[in-house]
Amino acid sequence: LAVASIITIGDELLIGQVIDTNSAFIAQLLNKHGFAVGRRVAVGDDYAAIKNALDEEKKHAQIILITGGLGPTADDITKPLLCEYFGGKMIVNQAAYENVRHIFENILKRPFTDRNKKQAEVPDVCSVLLNKNGTAPGMVFYQNDCVFISMPGVPAEMKAMMQNDIIPLLVSKFKPNYITHKTLLLAGIGESMVADMLEVFESSLPQNIKLAYLPNYGFLRLRLTGIAENKESIEEVIEQHFLNLQTIVKEHLVAITDEPLEKIVFNTLTKANKTVSTAESCTGGYIAQLITAQAGASSIFKGGIVSYSNAAKMDLLQVTPETILNNGAVSEQTVIEMSQGALQNLKTDYSVAVSGIMGPDGGSAEKPVGTVWVCVRSANTYKTQLLNLRFNRETNIKLTAMHAFNLLLRLMQQ
Amino acid sequence: LAVASIITIGDELLIGQVIDTNSAFIAQLLNKHGFAVGRRVAVGDDYAAIKNALDEEKKHAQIILITGGLGPTADDITKPLLCEYFGGKMIVNQAAYENVRHIFENILKRPFTDRNKKQAEVPDVCSVLLNKNGTAPGMVFYQNDCVFISMPGVPAEMKAMMQNDIIPLLVSKFKPNYITHKTLLLAGIGESMVADMLEVFESSLPQNIKLAYLPNYGFLRLRLTGIAENKESIEEVIEQHFLNLQTIVKEHLVAITDEPLEKIVFNTLTKANKTVSTAESCTGGYIAQLITAQAGASSIFKGGIVSYSNAAKMDLLQVTPETILNNGAVSEQTVIEMSQGALQNLKTDYSVAVSGIMGPDGGSAEKPVGTVWVCVRSANTYKTQLLNLRFNRETNIKLTAMHAFNLLLRLMQQ
Repeated sequence: LAVASIITIGDELLIGQVIDTNSAFIAQLLNKHGFAVGRRVAVGDDYAAIKNALDEEKKHAQIILITGGLGPTADDITKPLLCEYFGGKMIVNQAAYENVRHIFENILKRPFTDRNKKQAEVPDVCSVLLNKNGTAPGMVFYQNDCVFISMPGVPAEMKAMMQNDIIPLLVSKFKPNYITHKTLLLAGIGESMVADMLEVFESSLPQNIKLAYLPNYGFLRLRLTGIAENKESIEEVIEQHFLNLQTIVKEHLVAITDEPLEKIVFNTLTKANKTVSTAESCTGGYIAQLITAQAGASSIFKGGIVSYSNAAKMDLLQVTPETILNNGAVSEQTVIEMSQGALQNLKTDYSVAVSGIMGPDGGSAEKPVGTVWVCVRSANTYKTQLLNLRFNRETNIKLTAMHAFNLLLRLMQQ
Repeated sequence: LAVASIITIGDELLIGQVIDTNSAFIAQLLNKHGFAVGRRVAVGDDYAAIKNALDEEKKHAQIILITGGLGPTADDITKPLLCEYFGGKMIVNQAAYENVRHIFENILKRPFTDRNKKQAEVPDVCSVLLNKNGTAPGMVFYQNDCVFISMPGVPAEMKAMMQNDIIPLLVSKFKPNYITHKTLLLAGIGESMVADMLEVFESSLPQNIKLAYLPNYGFLRLRLTGIAENKESIEEVIEQHFLNLQTIVKEHLVAITDEPLEKIVFNTLTKANKTVSTAESCTGGYIAQLITAQAGASSIFKGGIVSYSNAAKMDLLQVTPETILNNGAVSEQTVIEMSQGALQNLKTDYSVAVSGIMGPDGGSAEKPVGTVWVCVRSANTYKTQLLNLRFNRETNIKLTAMHAFNLLLRLMQQ
């Protein structure tokens, strides 16, 4: 089994100024194609630290994937270091040169400076991966049984290179095992309760299938991972265990895919040829943007109203002044009327409305921070739910959206 | 200078199922308090891999911070491993026991099972950090000159423990250097152009001040980092260099803080005692949720309309049918009318409107994917901007929001 290490380079990773999303993408893609990731390491733009990481990771892995540190500025030192590490000298790569020139002259329409030209220089001991989406080329080096691949750190550039060039290269060089994952999502039950329910199930699993618990604020994903020499020898076996797992936890089951809830909502609406609208107070547009983050959302989403003020609730969603006066903006009656307003004004089959107190301020003894009312509605019926969340503002917003999607799915199943 | 390594534990990190946000938070907090982070390492729930990471990182750092792997389920092996690694035996910690019992009986209102009770067991060779937000206690171990601190992986629990317990502990044990960062944000200029402009500036910097380039899709952050024994010996010096830097790049300057643009907008509106509303097509609520993600947003944000369909643009924002018929939904005239509709319907001082094609589908020869119109408006005037973005859907949405905020700030400066 070929094992990979991922090295990400950049001071910004070590001062926490950016979150490393590249590693997660690379790991996901490698796993999908049967490579295991053993370690991920982040180091700064520091010569000794990068060299040490190369020395160290080649002890652990046969595949070393490196991102970052390839920009044209003085804080990027990866390329000369790799050149020295693998004993080469810098030369201009003609294809990379043409690519950089094309990008500056025809796409960016900015001057093609000497500094940019240096982007086309590579060590003469590597093979070059052309970067069609940017100026820094990818580089492949071999040493003993290890392959080292250096990629740009810009996510879109790295992603295209991983998918188009690196995965085919690795698959042809190594004969990867087949790895498969089956994930389901539960709501309303804690990790340790589930662990008790699954004790017998877990101990009955064959050695090449593992169960993992991935808790996430009141939702819990369970993941089965199977590993085998080929697809045929594992898919049926894991499917049977996955079905058993579903049976055991069926009371709390939300979904049997690893897709996010908004994607499940999107698929369910698309399949039913139905549309949805939103009326959001406390989530402030978060639910609408989750839906519209998906390509093709316009076929199921007509629009939404972010009614952050009482005036907006009354003017744009026809919540009555009496409802707000008598029950408050965070109340069951308010979300019932908000959902009605969205359904009518946006002429959709379903609507979702939420109103709550996300914190840190705005709570009271009667309605503390985390109090949220949710209403989902169709032409004929509606469902409401009261949430009592216990987290910070950001998490409360995310959780409200997840609960709203879960409630909408339950309404659609009726 | 005390150097830290961060070890994150969990198979989910190596298959890319979750993005590691913990490391960024920890790194940021350590830096703020004068500790340098040298390396970040992620390993799976694997005995040998975790042990190896401990062996390796203590060569590089005096502070080893460990998150994850402390849950109550079978895939969590960190605690027994740490117990063995530091030569202890497991005992029940009474304070941790009371805390876990309190959480299950009084907060979660779920049965307090034997599995939960195990959460209160710790090695007898550590000092315990109480976890007021969850069940897994933190643990502090000493070995030679190194301190090893194990924290839960749940972000809210880890964050509280870092801020309340671990930073004070580290500050009292080590005498950290003073580290300070000054960051500014540029728009509309490339990294290599800026690097050419700053060549003289950069070479004139003293040894203890470093310049970093952090490009982000058409926006570019420049960061000066100063390090010194104490605040007094660096703050004035770095401030002077930061002022020089601002002068050199002033034509492209957007902001001179490291805050996100939506925070700068929030602060600017708050200071001016003004309000804003949104009318979003292609961003689908993303701009509204960025504004409302901030605590206290209701004082400056009244609401927004996500007009994802033409009907919603006409019904909720009074865009005329002729405008859409003659110019299309993605046009200057449409966003001008959308901004007018938002300003009037939500009765705000400013409004922001966007309409565009985010991809991957929906583009045409005349209006390719990435074509976006932005309009920002006050009672008396408005500004429009045409964007030609070249990225994927997710990035196009984010960039549209950043450009819209930038344009709003420029309107407010008038």
